[in-house]
Parts: sequence; structure tokens; C-alpha cells
Amino acid sequence: MSATETQLVKYFMKKSRLSAAKFPIGIGDDMAQVKLHKNDSVLITTDMLLDGTHFDTKKTSLEKIGYKSMAASLSDCAAMATIPLAAVVSVALPRNFGAKNLKKLHAGILSAAKKYNCPLIGGDMTSWNEPLAVSVSMLSTPGKTKPVQRSTARLGDVICVTGNLGGSIIKRHLEFQPRIKEALTIAEAGANSMMDVSDGLSTDLNHICRLSKKAAIIDAAKIPVSKDAETLQNALNDGEDFELLFTISPKNFERLKKNWKFKKVKLTAIGKITKGDSAKIKMLDNKILNLFPDGYDHLKRIVK
Amino acid sequence: MSATETQLVKYFMKKSRLSAAKFPIGIGDDMAQVKLHKNDSVLITTDMLLDGTHFDTKKTSLEKIGYKSMAASLSDCAAMATIPLAAVVSVALPRNFGAKNLKKLHAGILSAAKKYNCPLIGGDMTSWNEPLAVSVSMLSTPGKTKPVQRSTARLGDVICVTGNLGGSIIKRHLEFQPRIKEALTIAEAGANSMMDVSDGLSTDLNHICRLSKKAAIIDAAKIPVSKDAETLQNALNDGEDFELLFTISPKNFERLKKNWKFKKVKLTAIGKITKGDSAKIKMLDNKILNLFPDGYDHLKRIVK
Repeated sequence: MSATETQLVKYFMKKSRLSAAKFPIGIGDDMAQVKLHKNDSVLITTDMLLDGTHFDTKKTSLEKIGYKSMAASLSDCAAMATIPLAAVVSVALPRNFGAKNLKKLHAGILSAAKKYNCPLIGGDMTSWNEPLAVSVSMLSTPGKTKPVQRSTARLGDVICVTGNLGGSIIKRHLEFQPRIKEALTIAEAGANSMMDVSDGLSTDLNHICRLSKKAAIIDAAKIPVSKDAETLQNALNDGEDFELLFTISPKNFERLKKNWKFKKVKLTAIGKITKGDSAKIKMLDNKILNLFPDGYDHLKRIVK
Repeated sequence: MSATETQLVKYFMKKSRLSAAKFPIGIGDDMAQVKLHKNDSVLITTDMLLDGTHFDTKKTSLEKIGYKSMAASLSDCAAMATIPLAAVVSVALPRNFGAKNLKKLHAGILSAAKKYNCPLIGGDMTSWNEPLAVSVSMLSTPGKTKPVQRSTARLGDVICVTGNLGGSIIKRHLEFQPRIKEALTIAEAGANSMMDVSDGLSTDLNHICRLSKKAAIIDAAKIPVSKDAETLQNALNDGEDFELLFTISPKNFERLKKNWKFKKVKLTAIGKITKGDSAKIKMLDNKILNLFPDGYDHLKRIVK
């Protein structure tokens, strides 16, 4: 059998059959949304970060690992244009990890918690003879707008990204700033769909297309390539950019751009939402190619 | 340095300094509680379950592992007398785990989700060259009463447990029934404090004493020893009973017992809350000994 992460997520969505009244947003988006009795709603995300995959305890300080673990979930809160509320963290600690190391990891977690006003309110500590694993689950609440989903891109929307893409592995993946405030501003300007670029632009834009039942064409010449990225391929396919990818009507995009107050974070229009169901890219020689999802697939190597 | 799990939790509590208005229950209980804008509140717990520690993939089916992972968090919902709402699950999968195995694990998760009306609404899948780790985070809402905490035992309370204790490792730890409905009934009868017995009665009763600033005396002759437990020591110190440990006024206990409708789950009074700050046990020869927390300490072996 050949199944990728996307196919498995489809399978899980089908099996869960969630009530749309109680769970307006379910499996398959950056966060799930739960409606409560008095009409409050809360969103939740969970991320598992592993030694050797998402960080390397041999090369990286535990403070940075703690920060990144929180920042990845904070980026999910941003992806939906929601306000972080609180986090819980469960850890699998290698034996002989020691209280001193645990406090360093905790200090990194708290540094992100404080910076983004998202307190650590609980957790679970276990130990084993294996490497470090950190699982963060985070709650958020909607801002002034409804949470912005992946599945709601509209025909004619401008496709935009914040910041620069590619080469995050060099160091940005440990120090990135989740785009919480930027996302709230983008949502208030009328963004139709949004997600964070965690698996690479090529993969993530295809998620928006598939879920929105639309096509997209992006312009290779316009992609903001990070100085850490060696090639356009890196900008398209490297994971862990943790920038925002969103779609918005051309009119709203012009207004957003005019009023944009985050001087250090650039906004770039890279393409358009069109009819169809897949993503394409116009190369520098004007050839139009399919933009295959060649970013990071967490299961590509494990699923047979 | 010599620190146990309890000391570290104290350290984390101190560092988080949570607003009591926004977070009526914070670090150190079975779940944390978050107040929302319109006065709804939601509780959250997280648990990390590891191959070789909480389950053994060589001996146990992935369906049972999935069930247990959910049931452990459901037991936390019961511990606070709250109603399970939804769960998210993040997994670290060994490479070559395969889609078929993932679907088995998922089926076990869903079986608990369906049985306890707590749908799976999201997750995260990652892979590495190490064994299986499963992290469940679960949301709940208060029932008719406030969530019942560990820290609110009162002088003169009867100390009670549901079911039988000890020897859970033989098989009960994989198949236990979280005491959700029982807990709601116990809370409505006026329980003052409650938790689930996950680290062993001796450890967990000491948590209630320490957090409530009270002492306790239990009667060895009254402890309901499971048929799977070889000795009283097992009933006192084995982990993963996932029964309820609660304290309640003698009058309310009599009423609770009279109206108890869960025929398959017995209720046993095992002692009393007294003045002081530690737990004691009256042995069969009437000698009174200190009941030291000799249950499972997740960090005893890792913290130096």
C-alpha cells in the first residue's frame, strides 16, 4: 500500500465524523475548534518534537529546544489568526537527563510562554531509555474575526506569504517568531484562507488548493527566497519556515499592504488562486510547471 | 541535587505564576482549568505514554495501546469530576511502522473516544528511529459541580476509593474503565477532594495531604486489595489503578453509599482526614506507621 500523510489525514477525518455544530473546525486544519455551552469557543493544536528530527540535543541548547517546541504550536495559533491562551507540555526524558537539564528545557518553554502571553498551565513527565520527545498542546481563542481556515480560498485571491522562505534549517527553525500579531492583522484585513508554512511552500500551497477545491499559480520570480536558502528549490520545499501563507482578494491585499505596520516582516504577493485543483508555478523562462508537494512529508519514509 | 517529581512540580508551579481569575486550577492537579470570555470554562490534561514504560509493543496489540492512551486522560477527566469533551493525539512513530499499524493504533484510540463520547479532533504524526510514543491531550468541561480538586480535603472527611487496588500490571492497566460517571455522582454527593490513583495509593494519598495541608490515617484491614495484587504492598504502591481516591464528609458518604447505582464498582471507606500534614496507616497488628509515598515516581530514576 502506498499512503502519504495527506491520505492518512483524509482517512482519520472520515473516521471521526464530527458534529459541525460542536466542532466547527475538525481534523485537517492547523487547529481544531470546539464550541462550548455559553457560545465561547476554544481552539486546540498538538505537536510532537523529537530529538534527531526536529532538534538535535547534541548541537542545540535545551533552552532553544524548549522555545522551538512552544513556537511551533504558537505558529499554529497564528495560522488560524487566533490568540494563544495556554499550553500544556508532556515530555519523554532520557534516563539520567537530570533536574538541571529539565529546568533548562522548562526555561526555554517559559521564555516563549512569556513572550507570546501563553502560560504553561500543566504537563506530564515520563522517562525512558530513549531520546528526548516533547509534545506541546496549545489552546487559543478567536480574535475579532472567525478563525481563518485552509479550505476557504476564493477564486481570484492573491496568494501571499510573510517573510522569506527556505534554508530555515541553518538556524531560523530554532529562533523563529510566530506571526501571531501579523496573522490577526491579516485576518482583520479580510484574508480568505491561511496556514503556516511548516512543511514547505510546495506542500502547503497544495493543501490550500486541495481543501479549497481550487488551483493556484505562483510566479517563481516573486518568491521571497531567504538568504539562508541556496536555491529556489529550497524556498519551495524546505520545511519549518513558520511564515504565513494566505489568500486574500486583490482589493483587500492592496489595503493590507498600505496599512502594514510590521516593518521587519515583509509581505509578498506570489501568485493567484484560479480554477482547478492543483498548484502550478511559472518558472523564470515563463514555462508553467506543476508544483508538486515536494516538501516534508512526515510519513513518506515510514508508510509502505 | 536530589529532587523528585513532586519537588519539580512545586518548582514549575512557582515559575508559572498563573492568574487565579483566568486559571482557577493550574499546575499540580489532574487537570488545569481555563476561564473563557463568556464565563464558559474548559479543563485540559496531557499524558505521554511510552513503549517499554506504559506499554510494550512486543506483547500488546496496538488497539489496546490506543485505548489505554485515551483512557489514561479520560481518568484525569474523572479525577476532577468533569465531562470529557474532545482529544488530540500526537505520536512519534518508529520508522517502518506502516499505515496498517497506524490504523490499528487509531482504531484503539477511537474505541475509547466513542465509548466515552470524547471525539478525536486533531493530532500530529512524526517519525524517528526510536520506539513508539503517544501523547494525548484532552479537554473537558465541568459537570453540575465545580471541578473537584486534590487540595480541598476537609478535617473529618472519610477517605474512599472505588474498585480494587494493586496488580494492575497483570492486565487491568490496559483495559481499565475510567470512572467518569462514578466521579460525577461522587461530586454531586458532595466530595471535598478527589484524584485518580495513577501512581499508587501511598503516593497519591500523600498528594492530597500535602496539597490540602491535612493528615490522613488509613486502615490496612479495609483496603480493597485486587485479586491481581499479591500483597498489601502492591495495593498501596502499584501504579495505574486508575480508580478514584476521594474524601467526603461522613454524612455525605452515607448518602452516597445508599444511593450508589454502579453495581460493578464498589465503594470503600479506608480511613479519615485528620490534623497534620502526612499520611499514616494502621497495620493489621494495630501499629501505626507512616505511609510513605512509595508508589511510582516517574523521575526517581532520572533525577540526580
